[in-house]
Formats: sequence, structure tokens, C-alpha cells
Amino acid sequence: MNQVVMHTGCGAEAGLISVDDALALITVRTQRLGTEQLPLQQALGRYLAQDVHSKINLPLFAQSAVDGYAISAIAEIDAGAEFALIGEIRAGQTANVALKNGQAVRIFTGAPIPDGTTTVARQEIVNVAEQKIVLTSPLKLHADTRDAGEEISVGQILAAKGQKLSVGAIAALSMAGISHCEVYAYPKIAVVITGDEVAENIDDYSAGKIFDANAPLIAVWFQSQLAHVEIMHVTDDKNAVLNLFAHLKDQYDVILTTGGVSVGDYDFVRPVALDLGFKQIFWKVKQKPGKPMLFAEYKREDASSCYLLGLPGNPAAVYVGMQIYTDTLLKALQGQTEPLSWFSGVITHDLKADARERFLRMSVQFEQGAVQLTSLAKQQSHMLSNLMQANGLVRIPAGQSIQAGNLLHGLLIQQ
Amino acid sequence: MNQVVMHTGCGAEAGLISVDDALALITVRTQRLGTEQLPLQQALGRYLAQDVHSKINLPLFAQSAVDGYAISAIAEIDAGAEFALIGEIRAGQTANVALKNGQAVRIFTGAPIPDGTTTVARQEIVNVAEQKIVLTSPLKLHADTRDAGEEISVGQILAAKGQKLSVGAIAALSMAGISHCEVYAYPKIAVVITGDEVAENIDDYSAGKIFDANAPLIAVWFQSQLAHVEIMHVTDDKNAVLNLFAHLKDQYDVILTTGGVSVGDYDFVRPVALDLGFKQIFWKVKQKPGKPMLFAEYKREDASSCYLLGLPGNPAAVYVGMQIYTDTLLKALQGQTEPLSWFSGVITHDLKADARERFLRMSVQFEQGAVQLTSLAKQQSHMLSNLMQANGLVRIPAGQSIQAGNLLHGLLIQQ
Repeated sequence: MNQVVMHTGCGAEAGLISVDDALALITVRTQRLGTEQLPLQQALGRYLAQDVHSKINLPLFAQSAVDGYAISAIAEIDAGAEFALIGEIRAGQTANVALKNGQAVRIFTGAPIPDGTTTVARQEIVNVAEQKIVLTSPLKLHADTRDAGEEISVGQILAAKGQKLSVGAIAALSMAGISHCEVYAYPKIAVVITGDEVAENIDDYSAGKIFDANAPLIAVWFQSQLAHVEIMHVTDDKNAVLNLFAHLKDQYDVILTTGGVSVGDYDFVRPVALDLGFKQIFWKVKQKPGKPMLFAEYKREDASSCYLLGLPGNPAAVYVGMQIYTDTLLKALQGQTEPLSWFSGVITHDLKADARERFLRMSVQFEQGAVQLTSLAKQQSHMLSNLMQANGLVRIPAGQSIQAGNLLHGLLIQQ
Repeated sequence: MNQVVMHTGCGAEAGLISVDDALALITVRTQRLGTEQLPLQQALGRYLAQDVHSKINLPLFAQSAVDGYAISAIAEIDAGAEFALIGEIRAGQTANVALKNGQAVRIFTGAPIPDGTTTVARQEIVNVAEQKIVLTSPLKLHADTRDAGEEISVGQILAAKGQKLSVGAIAALSMAGISHCEVYAYPKIAVVITGDEVAENIDDYSAGKIFDANAPLIAVWFQSQLAHVEIMHVTDDKNAVLNLFAHLKDQYDVILTTGGVSVGDYDFVRPVALDLGFKQIFWKVKQKPGKPMLFAEYKREDASSCYLLGLPGNPAAVYVGMQIYTDTLLKALQGQTEPLSWFSGVITHDLKADARERFLRMSVQFEQGAVQLTSLAKQQSHMLSNLMQANGLVRIPAGQSIQAGNLLHGLLIQQ
């Protein structure tokens, strides 16, 4: 494992770690958690910890793809042909008849086609008379049938280790009779909001405190991940931070903090963490918003770790921190080492250069198969109102002036 | 309100309603539900039922944008300039000093700048000596300050009626001191899985029953929407369906069914619904998968309605039905009348024409700012395994053969 960059001294602007290096460090320096077996329906959003193989053929048996009639015929059938109707097989029933040439049975979607079946006529092309059917259209052999094992065969891999259990993945596994799966444990996360300045009401606000966006933001971000976290508040007091972290480091996989992580006189997150034995992996990222971000690890005696992700207190930095860094950390803890899925799009306007890489909240539009990006107003780190419109978080490389038509990368934000 | 199309007779292929007409009918024929007040953090994914206006200026007061020093100076400052350091103001404290020309106070991000401040120096460009500071870089007037009301002013609209409460929207509203909001009620939904053929284990499966993908699919789809629904099973028995619907129609806003909605002899959903007084809004959509889809309404004596969305039993039809039709219905019930957000992309290969519009599961790739679509194998309506890879559900217009390079529309699927 290579140390991508050394951290820089207090307040130094030179040598800040890049966004990509910071993300790479999170991925390579994070030990994945253990695994657990879960009922499939409780595993939405989790990652498979082992390959899943099929124990069945799907379909198990040759079956009808439609509601109609299984027919035995030697060759293709012309319109007007008649067949003797000898019975009915419903889905979920077994086929205990065998068809001879010239015979048909009523059959339903998914029901086994009986021995002797050469084709299936969907009911829309069939007229039914007493004890016989008449086809209204010609019909080929092997029409509207599904062969045994056509989709999945016994032993075949259904889903690979690392597969995210999306709605579709869970449906597909359920269809193959999978009811439980081995997944990585979801990290146990303590969220710590630092700061003295939180307003509870308009009077507090009028007296100079501010309303806290960070606790609600983080609470609902985890809700959107179907996860529950504990959110704690701590004042800008060194002993309070120390006592809290001393307790949390032994109980949680992740301590996620907001605020108190810069070089100000009341920024106790980093010094306290270092005092408690956390080792800094990086501090300060060459980005806007969110420069004074901290990532550190505390190794417990049992060789497990508590990771500290210290986000700056500005709500825009917290927003970016959750979408980019927290997401990467949670994935790494669950064995996911692939980089985030950045989309690419074309910016519709110029942007001035900035010494740091920026994450701008943008409107992403699909126009005739092209992705167009337009920056929204009010991008400063204490402003969030443009998140009502934003559906993309777009990376602007450091030190480059951008012209309309340039290609940029970003993440789609769920609206 | 115009009736877009009349329903067609049993089994008729002519006159099927189009996908767009079906979606338009769901939107125009659905009465939106009432509203409720919720704590903001319990409203993720819900839709605002009224505009939200700001009760505050944000920021309330002129403040520092950084950790550094508030300075009083008549003009731009040269590197090397010195200022007398007269105190400190933390975030959350009030500024009870006033600066005179040549003076500075230590200040932190978000703290009020005192009267007399003309600019703020970030700490990175300041050397501190006893009782004075020395600037290491030149500094303009009004640097790193935030003006009162710069982001939001009292009375300004923060979010409009209909706004979806995304993570970002909730964070932005929290920052403006909004703690509760009026949202549309989330519909009360009964899910009814019809059919006799469900396997509980491999023995059942070997005996000809099939594993049910539909109940897990629907359960986790609603989980992904942060909603809880009751899932019931009913056998293909007319009286069982009748008794169940008779009870549900008075208790639920929506009855969502899978299976039993075609023209087969055991397809009781539609006849039972009509017997119970449901009025058909449409039946059968010119699409693949999912043709025999039913949408009907039961008007209760109190003028409220129970909507029946009857999806076919094939799991692919259920998957499309959830992503396209159930989503549209839930939005309509919550006052959202905008069409779904279809993206556009360019297909990388030819596709044969089909009489019905198709929804194909595709891989959506972003390449150099263009969206490229590639159809996945195993698209049949009884197959789901390609949902491990699919990240788009793409519409192929009816009756058109598609060439590589053609523009198509679809929905992004969350992976």
C-alpha cells in the first residue's frame, strides 16, 4: 500500500492532496468489514460478500410463454387448421397429459407444456368451438414456448461478489429461489456535529446563532441510503470533544464529524483525534468547498479500526463530503473499491480558473443524446438554496479556465 | 377532462392505448390526496403542498466567510501592512466592539463582523505578533465577507408548492430555520399478488410451482421510496379476490395487483373490480412487456377514490409497471402532474420493429458527454437477470425499426 501524499503543516496551501488522491486513499486504507447473512428483502442497497450460484434451472421445465393452447403438429400450421381440445393445464399444475398429433390443450402462461407439444398458439389467434380449436392465423413450430434452463441453468453464477443489491437484483435473485444472501455488514456510524452556534428558534437566530443544516442534511442522506445513524452534538470545547471521541472510537466503525477541523483556535477535532491515537491518513484536500477535510484511523487492539472522517462545517462542504467522500468510505467498508461513477457532460458556459478543484452544483440536461451542464447561482460554501434545482455535482479541475463546450465530469444527484 | 381513448373489447389487439396516453390518463384522472404537516426530517421524498417563504434574512448579519481577521482600512491593503489586534469574536457570539481605522479583531467563519470592518483577511495571509497582525499578501476591500440577506431575504420564496423534498432541499430549508412543512399525504397502498403457483422452496419448485419475484420486487421498490406497504397474496379464485377487494376498496387509496388481469379464464382482477363498482379508465396498453394493464377507479360515498392499478404477472411487466406506472400514479396522488423525466441517448446498434412500444433494459454509458445505449440480453418478460447490469429502461417506439445512432428516450434506473 503506498502512501499517496504526506500531510501538510498547519495552514499551508502548498502540497494539498488532490481529490482523486484523497478518494484513492480512502479506498486503499480502509479495511472492509465482516459479513452477515440477511433475508434478501432486508438487503436492499447492500453488497454481496460472495458469488451467488443458481440451484435451479429457470425455467425448470419447458413452458408456455402465453395464455393460449399447446398444440401438437408435425409442421407449421396454416390459418384455419383445427385441433382437438383435450384438456387444460394451469400455471402451478403439472402436465399429466401427452399430446398426439392434431391435439391441443388449454394452457396458461408459465404452465408446463405437455409431452408432444410442438408449438403454442396464443389465445388471440384461436377460436374455440366445442371440443376443438380453430387457428385464425398461421403459426410456426416452437412459437411462444420457453425452454427449460433458457434463462438460468443449475450452477450458473447469478450475481457476483460485490454486486449491489438493487431493486432489480433482488427481484432477479428472488425469481431464482434465492431467499437469503451473505452481504458485507453496514458500518456502525456516529455522527458528531460540532459547534456552539446552533439556533433552535428565531430568537436564537436573531441573537446571532445560525440554524443548523448539517444534522438534518446528514440524517436524511442516511435515510436515503436506508440507514439509520446516531447524531450527536458537541460544543467547541476540547474536553467535551475528547471525552466523546474517547468513547466513540471503541464503539463505532466510523466517526463522521462536521466542523472543528480547520486550523482555528477552536478546531479541536484533529488535535483531539491525534491525542487519542488516531493516525492521520490525510488532512486538507485541494478542493472547494471542503478544503480542511480530515481522514484518520484508530486501530483497536483486536485489529479492527475506527475511521474518522472530519468534514468542514460549511453546509456545502458537508453536502459534497457526503455525496463524494462519505459514499466512498461506506463503499470501501463494504468491499467496494471501484471509483465513483462519474458521468461526463458538456458545459454550456465559461468558468474562471480556480487554484483548487471545485464541485459546482449544476443543472444537468439531456438534449438529443448529449449531456449539457449549466452552473447554478449561489455556489458559495455557506449557500445551499440551489439544491432545489441541482441534479448534478460537477468537478471543475484545478487551475484551468473552462470554456463553453469543454467536457466535465460529475455525479448525478437524486432529486 | 377528455377521455383519451375508449377501452377495447376482450382480447382485441386493435385500439390498444399508447404508453403516453395511459400515463396521461393516470395523471389527469387521479385526484390528489389531502395534506399533512410533518417535521422536515420526516418528509424526505415527499412533495410540498404549499410554497415556503423565508422568515429570516440569510445571513442575518454581515459576517466573515473565513477564519481570520476583520480589519478596518480606508483602501486596499498592501502586503506588510500592520493592524492593531483588539479582540476576538467567535461564531455564535455577537460583535460588541467597533473597529477604527488600523484595527483588527480575530474572527471565525460565520461570526458577525463588527461595525467599522472594511475587509476580512483569511488567517493564511496573516502573521500574528503581540497585539498586532501583519499581512503577508495584499488584500482588497470587502474580501471574504458575507452581506446580510445575501442568500435569502425575509419573505422570499424558498421552495415552491410541488417541490420534491430531496436531501438537498431539506438541507437548504433547514438552513433557513424551517423545521416543519405541509406536504401531500403519502397514499395508503395495498399490494395484492394473485396466483396459485408460488413456490416456497425447491421441492415446490420441482413440483412445477415458480418462485415469486413480484412480492420481493414490490416490497423493495417501496423500500427504495422510503415507504412501507402491506403485501397480500390471493389465489386465483373469484370469491377470494372479490372478498379481498370488497374490503380493500374502502380502506386504501391504491390497490396494486400483479397477475390475473388478462383475458384468461382465471383472470379475475378486472371482472371482480367491475362487479364491485370500479370504473375502468384504461385496460391494455400497446407496450411490451405489460400489455394487459388495468387502471380503474372506485368512487366512495365521501367522494374520495380507491385506484386499482392491475399489473400483469410477468416479473418484467411488474418491474416496468413499478418504474413507469406506479411511480406516475404515486406522483399524481401527491399533486405531481409533470411527465416523468425521460433522458435521451443514442442507441449503439439496430433493433427490429415491433408492433408494440417496448421498454428494454439497457446499459447507459456516458461517453465524452454523449449518452450511449446498449440493449442487454434476455429481455423477455419472464426474465430479469439482466437487471444486475441494467441502469436504464429505454423506450422503443411502436412500429419502427431502429438503426444504430437513432435517438431514444428512457429512465435512469438506480443501481
